[in-house]
Amino acid sequence: MVKIVLIGAGNVAMHLYTIFKEHNAIDVVQWYSRSLNSIRNYSNEVAITNHLTDLKEADLYLLAVSDSAIGHIAKNLPFEDQLVVHTSGNISLEMMPPKNRRGVFYPLQTFSKEISVDFKVVPICIEAELQKDLALLEMLGSTISDHIYRINSEQRKALHLAAVFVNNFTNHLYYIGNKICEEHAIPFEVLQPLIKETARKVEILPPYEAQTGPARREDIKVIMNQIAMLKSKAYKNAYTTLTDAILETYGRQKL
Amino acid sequence: MVKIVLIGAGNVAMHLYTIFKEHNAIDVVQWYSRSLNSIRNYSNEVAITNHLTDLKEADLYLLAVSDSAIGHIAKNLPFEDQLVVHTSGNISLEMMPPKNRRGVFYPLQTFSKEISVDFKVVPICIEAELQKDLALLEMLGSTISDHIYRINSEQRKALHLAAVFVNNFTNHLYYIGNKICEEHAIPFEVLQPLIKETARKVEILPPYEAQTGPARREDIKVIMNQIAMLKSKAYKNAYTTLTDAILETYGRQKL
Repeated sequence: MVKIVLIGAGNVAMHLYTIFKEHNAIDVVQWYSRSLNSIRNYSNEVAITNHLTDLKEADLYLLAVSDSAIGHIAKNLPFEDQLVVHTSGNISLEMMPPKNRRGVFYPLQTFSKEISVDFKVVPICIEAELQKDLALLEMLGSTISDHIYRINSEQRKALHLAAVFVNNFTNHLYYIGNKICEEHAIPFEVLQPLIKETARKVEILPPYEAQTGPARREDIKVIMNQIAMLKSKAYKNAYTTLTDAILETYGRQKL
Repeated sequence: MVKIVLIGAGNVAMHLYTIFKEHNAIDVVQWYSRSLNSIRNYSNEVAITNHLTDLKEADLYLLAVSDSAIGHIAKNLPFEDQLVVHTSGNISLEMMPPKNRRGVFYPLQTFSKEISVDFKVVPICIEAELQKDLALLEMLGSTISDHIYRINSEQRKALHLAAVFVNNFTNHLYYIGNKICEEHAIPFEVLQPLIKETARKVEILPPYEAQTGPARREDIKVIMNQIAMLKSKAYKNAYTTLTDAILETYGRQKL
C-alpha cells in the first residue's frame, strides 16, 4: 500500500485523485489545497487541509500544482528526507530544494475538468534521484497505467515542447478549421472524421510518410489560391509558415 | 443498381473501387486509366481501358483523378448529356465543360495506399446541377457512408482549406514533435496517446474551449524557454507564429 499526500486541486490533481481512489494499492491519506473550498466536497472520504504544517506522514508527497507554485511549496514543506515529487513536464527536478528526496511523476496527457481520462493508456514519465524512489514511482505508475517511461529532466523538457506542438498548436489548427467552417455555414462535425483519421494514421505510418496536401505536392497554384481565400492575417501567417516548413522538409523551394 | 465508369487509378480511385465492389447496389462497369498497368490486376473482375473513346454506357462517369487532369479529361469525353462527376475538394463544378451534366462526389478523408478506410464514417460532400443527379449521388453516397452533405462549390473550397489546416498542417506538427523526440532519444509512441486524445477532445468541446498550454495561459517564461530550445529556424517560426495566433485569439498581446 502506497500512502500519498496529494497537494494541489487543479485538473491534474483532480484526475489523479479520482484514479488513485479506484485502486486499493493506493491510499490517499490527505489532500492539501491552498483553498479548502476546492476540495471540501471530498472531506467525507479523505482528510483535507490548507496548512502545509499539518501534513501527515506518507510514502510520497505529490505536488500536482502549477509550474510557478512548485518551488515555493517544495521549499515550505516542514520536513526533510521525504519523497517529494511534482507532476510537471516543464520543471526540472533541481527546481525543488534538495532537503527532500526529489522525483517527477509526469502524466503526458491533456486534462480537462469536463472529460474523463482512461489512465491505462496515459504515458507516465518518471524520474527520481534514488533507485528505491524510482522503484516506488514505477510501482505507483504501473498501478494506474500500462505505459511507464523513465525520462530524465532534459528529455522531459523536450517531451513537453513536443507536446506543445502535437497538442496545443494542433488544437489551434482545429480552431482555425472550425472558424473557416463557421464562416461558410458548414458544421464542424464534417471535419471530425478527418481529424481522427489524421491522428490514427501516425500510429501506422511515420508523420514524414503520412504527409499529403498541396505543400507536399508543391502545388503552388492551390497554395496561392488558398492564401488568397484567408481573410485574417494570423491565418495567412500560419498557412505560409507551415507551408514553408513542409516545402523545406521535402527539399523544395520555400514560397 | 447504379452503373459507374470509374476514371483514374490514384489513391482515391483505388479506395472507391474497393468499397464499390463491396456493394451489390453499385456496378463498376468499366475502369479507365491512362496507364493500363496500374489497373491490369483487376482485369479479371472489371472491364479496363486506356481509351476515352472506348468508354461504355453508364449512369455515372466518376473522375477520380488529380485536380490538374479533371478539365482535360472532362473536355475529351466523347459524349454529351451524361452525368460526369469529379472527386476533388478544390475544383469547382464549372471547371468541367457544360456539355455533360456536372456534379461532385468529394469524400473528405485522407487516403493512403497502405491504410484501409472505414467509409461508413467518411463525410461525402455532393453537388450537382440537376435535382435528379443530386438524388443519384445521394443514393450512391449513402450506400457507402452514413454522412452525406450537400455542399456547394464555394463551401467545398472552404472545406478543403479547413482540411489543409486540420490534416496537412497538423500532420506536419506531428512530424516536428517526432523530430524533437528523436533528437532526445524518446520513442514517438510516448506522444501518440496525447495526439489521439487531442483529436477526441474536440468531439466533446469546441476547439476554442479545448485550448490549453503556455500560450493559452500567457506563460511568457515557458514560451521563451521553449523557443530557445528549438534549433531549427523553421520550427522557431512555426512556434512563434502559432503562439502569436493563440495569444491573439484570447485577446492577449502578441510576442
